[in-house]
Amino acid sequence: MGIAADVLAGRIAAGARAITWLDDGDPRGAEVIKRIFPHTGRAHVIGITGPPGAGKSTLTNMLVGALRARGQRVGVVAVDPSSPFTGGAILGDRVRMARHTLDPGVFIRSIGTRGAAGGLSRSTHDACLVLDAMGFDAVIVETVGVGQDEIDVVNLAHTTIIVGVPGLGDEVQAVKAGILEAGEIFVVNKADRDGYEATRRQFELMLHLREQARPEEDWSPPLLRAVASAGEGAAEIADAIAAHRAHLDSTGGFALRSGLREREQVLALLRERLARVARARAGDSLLDDVEARRLDPYSAIERLTGGLDQEG
Amino acid sequence: MGIAADVLAGRIAAGARAITWLDDGDPRGAEVIKRIFPHTGRAHVIGITGPPGAGKSTLTNMLVGALRARGQRVGVVAVDPSSPFTGGAILGDRVRMARHTLDPGVFIRSIGTRGAAGGLSRSTHDACLVLDAMGFDAVIVETVGVGQDEIDVVNLAHTTIIVGVPGLGDEVQAVKAGILEAGEIFVVNKADRDGYEATRRQFELMLHLREQARPEEDWSPPLLRAVASAGEGAAEIADAIAAHRAHLDSTGGFALRSGLREREQVLALLRERLARVARARAGDSLLDDVEARRLDPYSAIERLTGGLDQEG
Repeated sequence: MGIAADVLAGRIAAGARAITWLDDGDPRGAEVIKRIFPHTGRAHVIGITGPPGAGKSTLTNMLVGALRARGQRVGVVAVDPSSPFTGGAILGDRVRMARHTLDPGVFIRSIGTRGAAGGLSRSTHDACLVLDAMGFDAVIVETVGVGQDEIDVVNLAHTTIIVGVPGLGDEVQAVKAGILEAGEIFVVNKADRDGYEATRRQFELMLHLREQARPEEDWSPPLLRAVASAGEGAAEIADAIAAHRAHLDSTGGFALRSGLREREQVLALLRERLARVARARAGDSLLDDVEARRLDPYSAIERLTGGLDQEG
Repeated sequence: MGIAADVLAGRIAAGARAITWLDDGDPRGAEVIKRIFPHTGRAHVIGITGPPGAGKSTLTNMLVGALRARGQRVGVVAVDPSSPFTGGAILGDRVRMARHTLDPGVFIRSIGTRGAAGGLSRSTHDACLVLDAMGFDAVIVETVGVGQDEIDVVNLAHTTIIVGVPGLGDEVQAVKAGILEAGEIFVVNKADRDGYEATRRQFELMLHLREQARPEEDWSPPLLRAVASAGEGAAEIADAIAAHRAHLDSTGGFALRSGLREREQVLALLRERLARVARARAGDSLLDDVEARRLDPYSAIERLTGGLDQEG
């Protein structure tokens, strides 16, 4: 198959096409994955997440530069809220990142969040596999840190960077628990702003609580400062990423996380497939009865899934 | 069944227990829904959403007071990020709301987000049905406006209020497109802050674009100001809710949205049930093969779902 071979040869156009197929659920995408899968598992997948307004895109942009300076080829998968009303702001970020787009060692790709529940992590992981097969050493996955979909996305990473920011208050820092627990590197961005010390102390407390709760943990997450808009903090973050990668390699954690990710991917694909079966099963007349309140949803489900549980 | 009868009699303890059962997937919850379902469809479900830091809890609190003053019984379903690290801030909001907890005309309930993808909107809707059956005139569903789960939750409402706030910048206002499109009432909270005018103009532009994109729309969303911490803006928001309710009643939109919600609930339940089947089908040895990269995820799925599509 031409496209899969071109992906393995690192051809950008082929990679972009394969990711589009996978994002759209085009069966040609699955064929590409089947061909390239044995050649994947090498790229270091780095998740970047945090609340809206933390400057994640700018930080990602800075980090791409830092990793390139160390000779790594870098892919970026940006999980994009894709709001038609705020296209300006988001486009601005992408344009800022565009200074890397002439660099053949950098490939940037947005994944929409328009898909069904659970579909986001599936297509993000597929995109990571394609970039991995293309030979990128690092794949950065950038997403906003709220919502179950986003946790699922971040759980795909070998190394997760949590980005905080001064002055947004407790509620805003409240990225979901699952993400905080997954974080291996913490960064307070916009550290030249008022409130930096308070935010830093807040993160220190949180890391202290985590350490107490998990005394057996063998990685101690660093807490770093950055002013990504001014390029400050890039080397320290790149060092921390390299340190975590070395830690993963020495403990077998790298292969372990890659394997768990593939396992989760099978379950995500299975849920997607079954959701399609569900839509087909729930015929119109039954849904009409529920809509008219002649039948309650739970009784409807009993009719729809009769016998299905036994098939497992 | 005692609990269902007690729910229909408006007993708080029974309602709380039923919601817990439904949240936990306890089959007794489904039995309650079957009994109460014919008596539901009366409550006005009001969604409140916006970015973190917009003051949604304070606004909800204010709105509860305003609706109570108009003689309505009000239920609140707060979709809670439930972060262990920010329990303080969130608890603070709940405590602030606690001034209503001695009022038998108010019932406040948090729903966790710990469930599986898609489970959040399912258990939120179940909670709305219970509050509806208990005789609450209005049910407010409060959630943060990012993530597919949250869109699903907001799509459950008859009337959706989008809350913005000055000074967070474009990116932070970028609640998801689906939510912006669903919004029927827009509120700029913390309107005494610097940047109010800029945020207001941003929302005006957004509403203007939306109007151009949908000339056939028969509801023109109002844009209101509020300082919820000082109780400002409550009457205007309550008026707008009443106006939208009257609009829904006059166009048949109220029953239409209720029906679509039940239809969506059947599909959500079906997805949950099928996800359980999926986990049972994906046996350990097949997942082990994928984890060890001996088998790719797409080929694994073909083996797992063989013949299933035909069952529909």
